[in-house]
Amino acid sequence: MIGVFDSGMGGLTAIKQIVKMMPQEDIIYFGDTGRVPYGTRSKDTIIKYSRQDVRFLLSKGVDAILIACGTVSANAIDILRSEFNVPIFGVVEAAAEKACELTGNGKVGIIGTNATVKSGAYVKHINAIRPDIETVSTPCPLFVPLVENGFTDAEDEITRLCAKRYLEDIKSFGADTLILGCTHYPIIAPVISKVLPGVDLVNTGAEAAKKLFESISPRGGSGRIEYYVSDDVDSFKSAASTFLEMPVGDNVFKVDIEKY
Amino acid sequence: MIGVFDSGMGGLTAIKQIVKMMPQEDIIYFGDTGRVPYGTRSKDTIIKYSRQDVRFLLSKGVDAILIACGTVSANAIDILRSEFNVPIFGVVEAAAEKACELTGNGKVGIIGTNATVKSGAYVKHINAIRPDIETVSTPCPLFVPLVENGFTDAEDEITRLCAKRYLEDIKSFGADTLILGCTHYPIIAPVISKVLPGVDLVNTGAEAAKKLFESISPRGGSGRIEYYVSDDVDSFKSAASTFLEMPVGDNVFKVDIEKY
Repeated sequence: MIGVFDSGMGGLTAIKQIVKMMPQEDIIYFGDTGRVPYGTRSKDTIIKYSRQDVRFLLSKGVDAILIACGTVSANAIDILRSEFNVPIFGVVEAAAEKACELTGNGKVGIIGTNATVKSGAYVKHINAIRPDIETVSTPCPLFVPLVENGFTDAEDEITRLCAKRYLEDIKSFGADTLILGCTHYPIIAPVISKVLPGVDLVNTGAEAAKKLFESISPRGGSGRIEYYVSDDVDSFKSAASTFLEMPVGDNVFKVDIEKY
Repeated sequence: MIGVFDSGMGGLTAIKQIVKMMPQEDIIYFGDTGRVPYGTRSKDTIIKYSRQDVRFLLSKGVDAILIACGTVSANAIDILRSEFNVPIFGVVEAAAEKACELTGNGKVGIIGTNATVKSGAYVKHINAIRPDIETVSTPCPLFVPLVENGFTDAEDEITRLCAKRYLEDIKSFGADTLILGCTHYPIIAPVISKVLPGVDLVNTGAEAAKKLFESISPRGGSGRIEYYVSDDVDSFKSAASTFLEMPVGDNVFKVDIEKY
């Protein structure tokens, strides 16, 4: 059984990909909706919260974990791997590999939360594979609240203006590939593409799910997905459909994450 | 000693007013920066978090509490008052009274977080004082992230567009008075005033501080303010100056709020 977690609902973009490739897999999803966002918090707090998230998933019996959160993958994965005896996959390595494959001109842009960009994790992994690649990284702290508050229409003027302001440096840098370093961002990919036409976008959640698929042997379950959240179950149910493009059904439960 | 708390830094707009009126008062401030924002969470989670906040302040020896947070004042004050044996002041009553005083045409607009508007608390208190007053309430969930991410310039196009969209109904309703039902909003008052010229704005944090001043006898301390936060101390120190318009000094400490 695979455990997947995110600060909130962004990680559902990875679930979508896992279900496509491994429809028989049983999955436990945890979204920390009572403490989202993670990306504006300090590294210490991100580590503390993600330890609790992993402990909770292990208590449900998962034997592999996908961190479907750019912020946690970039800031806490080494510590989590050293502390927990279970294979842990993140979004950074998978996305970095994909960006190295895709770029033609050797110029890669990276966007993410404040904490993700500050960590430098994507740049480190890209340059470990191809030291010749140049990068420009920009934090986009308003993208998560925009997505979570429904400013997701491809024509939304506020989201477009915000994208234009945030992506200015990456545009003038001339990147041909952009890592969407936060699992929320694929939801506003059409807006980003309008500001950066012709640029290849790397969907980190989907790439991480593909990497997971290549790395683990199928466990052969019944394809049951259980969702756990740290805030209200009903608001998760309705909002999750935006990310998942399928109903989550009644398998949504509340968990007191502070106890883990 | 007075305890003041908020989900994050918005409550500092109340501290400013308290210091002005009661410079001798010792104050303990708690900002839940590790779990901000509260306004997008469920009522249950808001109650749970605010109970912890009150328990923490009581552990520091405060004998009166000001909830400098619109979301908690609107959703949890009755429960907190029934559970804790200490005078608890909120922002809703004070702001409702001020709006009733100010309005000439009997039309009051209310803006706040999702949870605040959903609670109907401001409307209830206004109509308890003056049943003839008509109100229109609009949630503005993006205002807190805009403020926290520095989109606070009076000329910022994104904030202005956002304000224009959110305040459209209140503008056509013809309110002459607007309650800024969240203690973050005074920071972008100039933008709000551009969209609603001539409308009186009620600063809830400042009104609540005035009410506190009228209600309690001076305790005669040394004017020492201690700040506690649930995330990184240094980022609080630098950001707090925006709200407080004075340096917070070295009296900022970290607290593990989940233990309370």
